[in-house]
Amino acid sequence: MKYYYNLLSQPSRALYIFLKLNNIPVEYKDVNLLNGDHLTDEFREINRFQKVPCIVDDDGWKLAESIAILRYLMSKYKNIPDHFYPSEIRARAAVDEYLEWQHLNTRLGCAIYFQIKKKIGPFAAISENPNEGALPIFKFLMESTLEAIETLWLRGKKFLCSDEISFADIIAACEIEQPRMTGYDIFENRPKLKEWYERVRAATNPHYDEAHVIVNKIIARSQKAKL
Amino acid sequence: MKYYYNLLSQPSRALYIFLKLNNIPVEYKDVNLLNGDHLTDEFREINRFQKVPCIVDDDGWKLAESIAILRYLMSKYKNIPDHFYPSEIRARAAVDEYLEWQHLNTRLGCAIYFQIKKKIGPFAAISENPNEGALPIFKFLMESTLEAIETLWLRGKKFLCSDEISFADIIAACEIEQPRMTGYDIFENRPKLKEWYERVRAATNPHYDEAHVIVNKIIARSQKAKL
Repeated sequence: MKYYYNLLSQPSRALYIFLKLNNIPVEYKDVNLLNGDHLTDEFREINRFQKVPCIVDDDGWKLAESIAILRYLMSKYKNIPDHFYPSEIRARAAVDEYLEWQHLNTRLGCAIYFQIKKKIGPFAAISENPNEGALPIFKFLMESTLEAIETLWLRGKKFLCSDEISFADIIAACEIEQPRMTGYDIFENRPKLKEWYERVRAATNPHYDEAHVIVNKIIARSQKAKL
Repeated sequence: MKYYYNLLSQPSRALYIFLKLNNIPVEYKDVNLLNGDHLTDEFREINRFQKVPCIVDDDGWKLAESIAILRYLMSKYKNIPDHFYPSEIRARAAVDEYLEWQHLNTRLGCAIYFQIKKKIGPFAAISENPNEGALPIFKFLMESTLEAIETLWLRGKKFLCSDEISFADIIAACEIEQPRMTGYDIFENRPKLKEWYERVRAATNPHYDEAHVIVNKIIARSQKAKL
């Protein structure tokens, strides 16, 4: 199986960590997004949506969308620890609840805030008037999301969906790195978020830090710029 | 099991149609969104995110997020036809691929365009300068999504993920009703989208039309306003 990814993409990093952590036998294919290698006719044959991450299985069967890929891997490889995506129906539903919720909350809030602030990607044009219109709305959405993780998702649990780590935690941690790259301190006044984040890193390292080498350089630079 | 919903909410309508079509025994609880009944302390006990749709099972167990609820229902009720959410892993992955993709495409594009145009909901503030900034970006996103459905998802298939209807089709059809309520003609120059839409309605009626009585009144009014 071939895994197409780039470590600048949050869901690419989440699946990369998951694949490494579980020793899933894939061929890693880094797609240079900054060069536009995902926008070529050649790559359109690999993923009709021209995005990463995506997979091509040994017989040529293709799949896009990180969470759809996670579910496929859980069905295909029977030796992956169950807690990453539980088989018991209510435990699974609890993980599904976060995996659905995050798209228009964690992902939308953190990713679009990042794009507007950094003037990168399809929502960069919003940044023309950064103090009016859309930016405050997306900042509010991002902060509401971080508050919901702090006060609702992490209430009485070590991880987002139970006391054990699941794919929900990995994908959430990778998403909240985005605003950190703009110099925004996501952990200020959010002690549970910070403790949970360190728990996710500890449970997935050295792969978590390996997937975030470039991201961490950008975070360090943005913190230096603020001093 | 109690089903909390409101027919102004797209995912509420999708699950409503699915529940009726499959005779799933639930108690229907209409939550008046226009009155703010979802924002009460009482409703917070039912869904901590204060949104519809959501369910409370007989023993008090709660679940939010329409697609998480769909998966739970498929696991709990063994007599629902398999094609709605297939058990074979690649057929399921094909449905999962759409169910993941739609959040930041069909749903985001159609819902935010609707909110900005109608000045309703959390993104209404963007409408202050409707001709600049965010509106053209969301219009572009909505139109790209409709094009992707026309040219990629519906290529060589009767429904989005195969030749049989799945939950992906129901949730997609309910989402694309949103721009129709602003007077935007989603079917112009998109013949496959129109044929597919009529196929979804035919496969789910009378429940589809029953769930869209209010929506259809708003669409009729917006078309009249354009003449």
